[in-house]
Amino acid sequence: MASTSHHPVMLPNKHLDHLDSDYLFHLDIPLNDSEIVSKFHNVKFVCIGGTANRMEKLALHLGQEINFQPTGNSRFDYSFTNERYSGFKVGPVFCVSHGIGTPSLSVMLHELFKLLQKASCCDVTLIRIGTCGGIGISPGTVVISTGALTSGFEPFYTTSSLGKTLKLPTSVDMNLVNSLQGCRRDEDGFQVVLGKTYCTEDFYQGQGRLDGSFCDYSKADQDAFLRKLYDLEVRNIEMESAAVLAMAHKVGIRAAVVCSVIVDRLQAELPTESRDNLQAFQNNAIVLVGRHIRQRLNL
Amino acid sequence: MASTSHHPVMLPNKHLDHLDSDYLFHLDIPLNDSEIVSKFHNVKFVCIGGTANRMEKLALHLGQEINFQPTGNSRFDYSFTNERYSGFKVGPVFCVSHGIGTPSLSVMLHELFKLLQKASCCDVTLIRIGTCGGIGISPGTVVISTGALTSGFEPFYTTSSLGKTLKLPTSVDMNLVNSLQGCRRDEDGFQVVLGKTYCTEDFYQGQGRLDGSFCDYSKADQDAFLRKLYDLEVRNIEMESAAVLAMAHKVGIRAAVVCSVIVDRLQAELPTESRDNLQAFQNNAIVLVGRHIRQRLNL
Repeated sequence: MASTSHHPVMLPNKHLDHLDSDYLFHLDIPLNDSEIVSKFHNVKFVCIGGTANRMEKLALHLGQEINFQPTGNSRFDYSFTNERYSGFKVGPVFCVSHGIGTPSLSVMLHELFKLLQKASCCDVTLIRIGTCGGIGISPGTVVISTGALTSGFEPFYTTSSLGKTLKLPTSVDMNLVNSLQGCRRDEDGFQVVLGKTYCTEDFYQGQGRLDGSFCDYSKADQDAFLRKLYDLEVRNIEMESAAVLAMAHKVGIRAAVVCSVIVDRLQAELPTESRDNLQAFQNNAIVLVGRHIRQRLNL
Repeated sequence: MASTSHHPVMLPNKHLDHLDSDYLFHLDIPLNDSEIVSKFHNVKFVCIGGTANRMEKLALHLGQEINFQPTGNSRFDYSFTNERYSGFKVGPVFCVSHGIGTPSLSVMLHELFKLLQKASCCDVTLIRIGTCGGIGISPGTVVISTGALTSGFEPFYTTSSLGKTLKLPTSVDMNLVNSLQGCRRDEDGFQVVLGKTYCTEDFYQGQGRLDGSFCDYSKADQDAFLRKLYDLEVRNIEMESAAVLAMAHKVGIRAAVVCSVIVDRLQAELPTESRDNLQAFQNNAIVLVGRHIRQRLNL
């Protein structure tokens, strides 16, 4: 990692200076416990993904990649699992689950960012590692997002502030994107593709599926929608990218979204591959991110 | 339960008749397994809430309330826990977790409704049991929603269909609301209040908090927002009600949202009560719903 860069996490919320706000309610981490907070000071990479199980496996894999030596009885520097989220820290890498969709993700990110600031972390990179539907992309391919579009096909994460609509731009750091892409090797059994990601708040009608509990459109409407996405240079669909990119941009943290395709939506509604294949596909994104982290840590 | 009523779950999706759509991807339940599906035929109440732990405890409590006798080694008729959702069935009551926010909830409901139709369920009532912030309401109070407002203060669940905005009305069955309210007893150590629920996609700026990782407004703006909610007859805030009411209405299933207040947002950002008190508060909504189910089952 270039020793000249030194960007501390500095959150754009002036209220935090004088609020008695020292407890991360959903992560269940007390910010006034300096012993816990100090464990996070060395964090350089935060990897996030949907489920607790995946994040535990991810932390163990990335720990091996960076030759992490656990101290004490735990396999992790720090870990937590509460009713809502789970986190597993291996040296400079912290892996945290975010659930499904931008609301669940945004709650976790707000609290995670506060933890990173409190721990005086510097030069942090945030990477979402997930699965997705591809648009004209074969299962197993890894898509690195060059931006996120949301409903209305706009490059904004739409949320609200005091009841009013808030549109935050979904900006991407292309240096990070290119660096991640460069981690593919010729011997890999998978392709890496750059493209826009369509981020929805619904898995069924929102993503143009016919098989939800209600559906108000025809097969022809579905086809036209998926073709439109392709024409807009969208190469995959998932449910969190817009909030990851927009919230990280808002607080000045470099971020990327790296997802393994598990179904080509131009071919099917749901994955048709075996569970073993789906597991192998998930692993492709993890392999790529692991190499990137090794490289950045000069390992 | 009145024997004259007989409303089978009939989903408004004509594609389901001829689609080969027999696998609930996120619940991980195969609809083509008639042995599993038949277990759900007697379901009359689906109770939903945020986390797996809470739903397991809820199922055990409601099982006791209705004198459920487990058969075999399991404490449940049927249960599942996968990476995303968990469900626990005790006789006619099925308790399922939904995570945080409407996207996570909507994925689960789409698949749950398909299961209920496949199992030929009749006269189903859906009740979300949760925790919430109150607006001028003391912790421990139970709020039964008379409707849900979302960002923009409109009575719609806003989602999307093929990239276009979709606004579904958040309708409430007032007979169900009144029946639930009538289950309070004079000796109860808590009050029951009817009021509108404000449903947000964000826990921090969306709900007028000052302590997120970013905040673009002042304390005075916050105060004006919370007062406006009170003036609009909003009595609580949470993150799922609009989708519960709108999706149930869309498919013709009776639904209600019953939440225990854990903090009065006119007084504080986050709960200040002890964990034991918060646990006791959560229980108030559960007690009320338990009595309603007993009554409906003529127990």
